[in-house]
Amino acid sequence: MRIHMKLKVKLLDIQAGGRRIAILDDETASVLGVHSSDRVKINYKNKQVIAIVNTASNFPHNYIGVYKEISKMLSIQSDEIVEVQYAPVPESLSYVQEKLNGESLQENKIKAIVKDVVEHHLSDVEIAAFITTLHIRGISLDEIKALSKAMVETGQILNLNKKPILDKHSIGGIPGDKTTILITPIIAAAGFTIPKTSSRAVTSPAGTADRVENLCPVNLSVEEIIKVVNKTNGCMVWGGALELAPADDIFIQVEYSLGIDPLLLPSIISKKKAIGATHLVVDIPTGRGAKIKTIGEAHALAQDFLELGKGLAIDIQCAVTFGEQPLGYAVGPALEAKEALETIMGDGPKDLQEKATDLAGMLFEMMGIKDGKEKAKKILYSGKAERKLREIIEAQGGNPRIKPDDIKIGDKCAEIKADKNGKILWINNQYIAQIARNAGAPKEKGAGIKLKAKLGERVKRGDTLFEVYTERNTKLESALKLAERLQPFGIGERWDEQMLIDKIPTEITHRKVLSIER
Amino acid sequence: MRIHMKLKVKLLDIQAGGRRIAILDDETASVLGVHSSDRVKINYKNKQVIAIVNTASNFPHNYIGVYKEISKMLSIQSDEIVEVQYAPVPESLSYVQEKLNGESLQENKIKAIVKDVVEHHLSDVEIAAFITTLHIRGISLDEIKALSKAMVETGQILNLNKKPILDKHSIGGIPGDKTTILITPIIAAAGFTIPKTSSRAVTSPAGTADRVENLCPVNLSVEEIIKVVNKTNGCMVWGGALELAPADDIFIQVEYSLGIDPLLLPSIISKKKAIGATHLVVDIPTGRGAKIKTIGEAHALAQDFLELGKGLAIDIQCAVTFGEQPLGYAVGPALEAKEALETIMGDGPKDLQEKATDLAGMLFEMMGIKDGKEKAKKILYSGKAERKLREIIEAQGGNPRIKPDDIKIGDKCAEIKADKNGKILWINNQYIAQIARNAGAPKEKGAGIKLKAKLGERVKRGDTLFEVYTERNTKLESALKLAERLQPFGIGERWDEQMLIDKIPTEITHRKVLSIER
Repeated sequence: MRIHMKLKVKLLDIQAGGRRIAILDDETASVLGVHSSDRVKINYKNKQVIAIVNTASNFPHNYIGVYKEISKMLSIQSDEIVEVQYAPVPESLSYVQEKLNGESLQENKIKAIVKDVVEHHLSDVEIAAFITTLHIRGISLDEIKALSKAMVETGQILNLNKKPILDKHSIGGIPGDKTTILITPIIAAAGFTIPKTSSRAVTSPAGTADRVENLCPVNLSVEEIIKVVNKTNGCMVWGGALELAPADDIFIQVEYSLGIDPLLLPSIISKKKAIGATHLVVDIPTGRGAKIKTIGEAHALAQDFLELGKGLAIDIQCAVTFGEQPLGYAVGPALEAKEALETIMGDGPKDLQEKATDLAGMLFEMMGIKDGKEKAKKILYSGKAERKLREIIEAQGGNPRIKPDDIKIGDKCAEIKADKNGKILWINNQYIAQIARNAGAPKEKGAGIKLKAKLGERVKRGDTLFEVYTERNTKLESALKLAERLQPFGIGERWDEQMLIDKIPTEITHRKVLSIER
Repeated sequence: MRIHMKLKVKLLDIQAGGRRIAILDDETASVLGVHSSDRVKINYKNKQVIAIVNTASNFPHNYIGVYKEISKMLSIQSDEIVEVQYAPVPESLSYVQEKLNGESLQENKIKAIVKDVVEHHLSDVEIAAFITTLHIRGISLDEIKALSKAMVETGQILNLNKKPILDKHSIGGIPGDKTTILITPIIAAAGFTIPKTSSRAVTSPAGTADRVENLCPVNLSVEEIIKVVNKTNGCMVWGGALELAPADDIFIQVEYSLGIDPLLLPSIISKKKAIGATHLVVDIPTGRGAKIKTIGEAHALAQDFLELGKGLAIDIQCAVTFGEQPLGYAVGPALEAKEALETIMGDGPKDLQEKATDLAGMLFEMMGIKDGKEKAKKILYSGKAERKLREIIEAQGGNPRIKPDDIKIGDKCAEIKADKNGKILWINNQYIAQIARNAGAPKEKGAGIKLKAKLGERVKRGDTLFEVYTERNTKLESALKLAERLQPFGIGERWDEQMLIDKIPTEITHRKVLSIER
């Protein structure tokens, strides 16, 4: 019934970010009966692909322009002939519209949506409408469950054939949180399986994968991960290339644009489900500069995690942790790796040791061990955790004898000093993150910040508050300027003597608070 | 404070549909500190443009790829150097987020959003979030007013320096609605000013501009329009190139993708305001196959129009009209132009004459004339309307002596016949539109449908129900097949003897109902 046209292919030598987009000139589109944002089916030999049409007024007649995504799928060259026809909108779009109009979505409909997201059958505009709708209408627990399941089903799975499988996740937002580098070996040293996958930084100065990369390779294949875990009980790898929940990468992109994250829970849970986690501790850092600002908010989120866990057969416990300042003293990939290594070797900041053994202890108690924290401490302080860490480093292809001083820190350094006497009354997490990023983190691994004073400590005028490390002089200059302007430390004697926390200049140069590292 | 980079320009020889998109490879984006969907400011000589970043993994380092939109704005060539830096998100995005989070928007914030839409500072994803939010949260009358105003202010204005200015608008959805070609000359012949701008078909077989184009040119500039109106009191031109409310063209594109149209009212009203309308009759065709299905819906929409009119100083009245079948017998640009010309010359279908004089009569009564319908009829039947139409045709550059037979109709024709005796119980508007489009309308002007029977008429088995006209044999075949499958006529004796209206095949090949011609 529909018109078929034979069109010449014009290869566009760029990627469309995964999107399947075809360009038609207005005339050709009109003959074919399609408008911009309609879909066409492109047939070539025995392959076919559905693409979303962008019309262009200056494109040659009777040609179809295809970006790399499509030319790869069809293995096609320029000037070859394809057959093109109108393709109806995917049925999943009508499910998006149902949710838009206030209905709740059954599992099969959610599956269809997620599948079409992963296969790039839904456009950015349609995904944006879905995300916006979820944000406004809310997502029921059943929908979160279905979303989590669908996101697992459309991705790869890490099949370790073991039970239980333990995991830890932080919802993030605290600079310097290198807890995973301690928890993983503590748990693995006790004989439990903990295949930890982590993200790289997107909006923060360092993700766990960025940190661990200073100790050993993190970009392992699924097969390699299984080998490492079978040998050592644990691993610390980058999850990004494993395609564990590829829908999430697409959703995150849109959530990032819009500054909303209605898919936070299914996103986290799907990745845990994909590695087969049976027991999970979720860390919810809470404080003004954290993602979650108040204990009340933290409890509400924890409640959602607990219920979701029940629905998806993962035993979940949550930890609400103190998030008013960076964890430890080091911020930035190499600085943090070094601090974590020092800590596991017996010489590290108290808050980091506390938090790591708290969270590891919770996991132990979920395994039926009494006084889990005590057990975690013993493993940490006895050197067992260090030995396990070195085992994992070796299994992942790193140097098991690595010393803290082997980790290269940026060689340009400057100090930011206190301009008066007093106590540290507050530290702005976001400003610290911003300065560290300005210094070059996470891209330049050696860049970052080392705090020299933390909350409640007394400083004198001229004392160093923090050091900035960079790999390049220009960055150092830029980071220092930013540090001077932002003033991330509040110094005073009493809480009532410095009421002004922040001045808003004519232009606000820092970005939205949303952190999308999950 | 922010990093500036000098990058080489790589021109991408295609348009991005008006969007301002720049391509960076992952590496370069990372150094610059931007992610996909972030914005950059591109400086070249004394020009600058804000672009939205798409990252690509196979793009050369230290290059920035720009589509035609940007290269034109900067007048730049390949391999020239530009300075690029991170640009913060536009403030209007935070207003979109406010509405997203349930707040209502003040006029200044709506202005900022519309301005950034027109200037392409908001991405498709962000506009989709806005449209979705408006659909779910609803738009208050104050917001509609502000949107209408902002859409006028960001576009061109037709300044005729006259008062009153009359106008008529149909919200559409009825095939064959050529009423404007009669109303405009009736009103103009009575000495009132009616500068009618119309759209082309997007989802329908013919828009008014497509119809009128068979009588005279419709693609006039603002200056030409003013001349025509000063000479004849009226005009019938294509509004599309006049940039009367350019925000609307962008909104419509997204609404079309999503199958929702929360901006219907501001869209219509802004275009009326832009031509300076002081008195407007809005036609709301109502019926199962129309955009508005029930009288109740029609009344609710009418109420909104009336209130909006008060707020924007346009005197508005609404007409709820019978929309259960096509208007007149002809569907398709040339067929409809011919039927309109025949009707104004004294030989046309009753329903078209009725509707045209009804609506023109309402406008007359708004001017204080008693029994407006009578006046409209007199002008129509006395030949005054025809003379005025020919004046307008001449002023717009057409042949004032045009005869109905001068209008070229597709020379391939086939008849669809009744398969039993009975009365026409229903006619499916959408199917008629679909078959006409399949025949080639609106692209092929001579293509379309001529009905041979209408609601309530008695037919015998073998009588012709309608004729399909096309310009090409292949189209004729395709349209006939579709007609056979869709069966747009219901024939029977009583309403209770044929209960099945439609069978849904395994695949539904017709598109969404949304009509976005405004």
